[in-house]
Amino acid sequence: MSEMKAFDFQAWSHQQLALIEQSLDLWVPHEIGGSLGSSMRYAALGGGKRLRPLLCLAARHSMRLLGEVGHESPCLDQAALRAACACELIHSYSLVHDDMPCMDDDVLRRGQPTVHVKFGQAMALLCGDSLQALAFEILTPSESLVPSRVQALLCKLLSQAAGHAGMAGGQAVDLQSVGVVLTQAQLQAMHAMKTGALLQASVMMGASCSHEGALSESLQTSLLTYANALGLAFQVVDDILDVVSDTQTLGKTVGKDAAHDKPTFVSLLGLDGAQAHAQTLHQQAHEALLATGLKDVRALGALADLVIKRKS
Amino acid sequence: MSEMKAFDFQAWSHQQLALIEQSLDLWVPHEIGGSLGSSMRYAALGGGKRLRPLLCLAARHSMRLLGEVGHESPCLDQAALRAACACELIHSYSLVHDDMPCMDDDVLRRGQPTVHVKFGQAMALLCGDSLQALAFEILTPSESLVPSRVQALLCKLLSQAAGHAGMAGGQAVDLQSVGVVLTQAQLQAMHAMKTGALLQASVMMGASCSHEGALSESLQTSLLTYANALGLAFQVVDDILDVVSDTQTLGKTVGKDAAHDKPTFVSLLGLDGAQAHAQTLHQQAHEALLATGLKDVRALGALADLVIKRKS
Repeated sequence: MSEMKAFDFQAWSHQQLALIEQSLDLWVPHEIGGSLGSSMRYAALGGGKRLRPLLCLAARHSMRLLGEVGHESPCLDQAALRAACACELIHSYSLVHDDMPCMDDDVLRRGQPTVHVKFGQAMALLCGDSLQALAFEILTPSESLVPSRVQALLCKLLSQAAGHAGMAGGQAVDLQSVGVVLTQAQLQAMHAMKTGALLQASVMMGASCSHEGALSESLQTSLLTYANALGLAFQVVDDILDVVSDTQTLGKTVGKDAAHDKPTFVSLLGLDGAQAHAQTLHQQAHEALLATGLKDVRALGALADLVIKRKS
Repeated sequence: MSEMKAFDFQAWSHQQLALIEQSLDLWVPHEIGGSLGSSMRYAALGGGKRLRPLLCLAARHSMRLLGEVGHESPCLDQAALRAACACELIHSYSLVHDDMPCMDDDVLRRGQPTVHVKFGQAMALLCGDSLQALAFEILTPSESLVPSRVQALLCKLLSQAAGHAGMAGGQAVDLQSVGVVLTQAQLQAMHAMKTGALLQASVMMGASCSHEGALSESLQTSLLTYANALGLAFQVVDDILDVVSDTQTLGKTVGKDAAHDKPTFVSLLGLDGAQAHAQTLHQQAHEALLATGLKDVRALGALADLVIKRKS
């Protein structure tokens, strides 16, 4: 480890965030379909923590130090950046659709009017649909930019995470859980689909941007365990913040889960129990990172810390 | 041409349709996310002309006779079948979202209640979202089934056709054209995005399932011209049927365009003018097929005939 330079997460994430914002600005279209382009940019460029793209780039970072040399590296950096932005676009589209009146009916997101409030419901629907398609579009540039093998793998991982067995499926379960008493296992299973699948995909897509044809089974398992713990911790903290934070800090309406009679980790475990659970998951995430055997997992570790400590 | 067997389009399309239905039945999930799976099956397996998958398989058929031999053929047949179903899933999702109250607010589709009427608006939203993701999921099976090169290309063509510069973008333009006087050029440009892009993609995706790394530029141009003429003819006939047909034959509410003050080819050219325009486009499609230089374009030709002669 002696040759390893000290890792400055602040500097690293600052640099990555700049790259992400710059790329999204480039890839999300300006003027198209009347106000469709504007609504897409409003949804995708309006801030946010960019947790998914950071996870993706952190996973790529951890793989890169496997001693990667050779001509594929710029292609793999490009692939990881596209994967990072594609994950964020899927996340953005899900927020747009989630906020619509027929779903959560939210008027505020990141302190701003939601897309349907600003552009109307029909445009919000098309905005979300277009953001999903765009995610796959940026994953499939010309072959000279990203090898076909990687393009196909990234599309596979993302579509599985976004669809019926992942994010959208989890939202459907969530929808049908209103007013229903869930066990902790059921609640965790729902969140593993609803938010966990895309967070996991962010990690696995970043890790897949490597020279290895496929990841070893043990590395895959450890990374999945890390992502799973982080994803659940994220949701537990979300539930805690919905109770202890205020609308201004959070940038979205607080107390909505309780008002909608939705099961949460706080309603199930109590506030103290939820906080203890978050700590346990945090520790699990770090243990899984150690088990990867990767030389430098500091960016992934710092992101796990961030998820626990976040205030919004 | 002497060695060419007589082509029985009825028999060919009957066989292809069976394959398409069987594959969709296999690939669209059963039980997942409460009623999400049911809503997806309701939307995707509820009949329809299957024009897009047939175009895709017809294009593959026309390419196959370039003298294809070798180990890749079963993979390319598999790729074309997946491409065909993926195009249909994108079409299905667009109908589900299009029918929602915030869009066209339609209660009837193929003679049955629309998805949001049967499953609720929130589930219809998630159903469409999941169908879009599923399209990309079935395009990216294991590499042993479909070569990565083809997977990546199919995802690229489909995402471009579905997104902001294609179908969804066209719907956004359509949305903002209500009560606006469009020129014929503007109306055609809107439909080229709204319905044309996915019809074109169906043809190009099928043609891309071939040994050729990339299609020659002249072949590409001819196929695009064919698809473009067919797509516009489809829309002109749609506008004509909206006026001359009845709700029972059509399986959806007729007269809605006029009621919503939407520009159509009939409102622009009159009924006779629209019918003449459809004939011209029909002829253009056949001329473009001749110009491809492909040996057997009979399935593609028969589909152009079908589009013109359809009564629903």
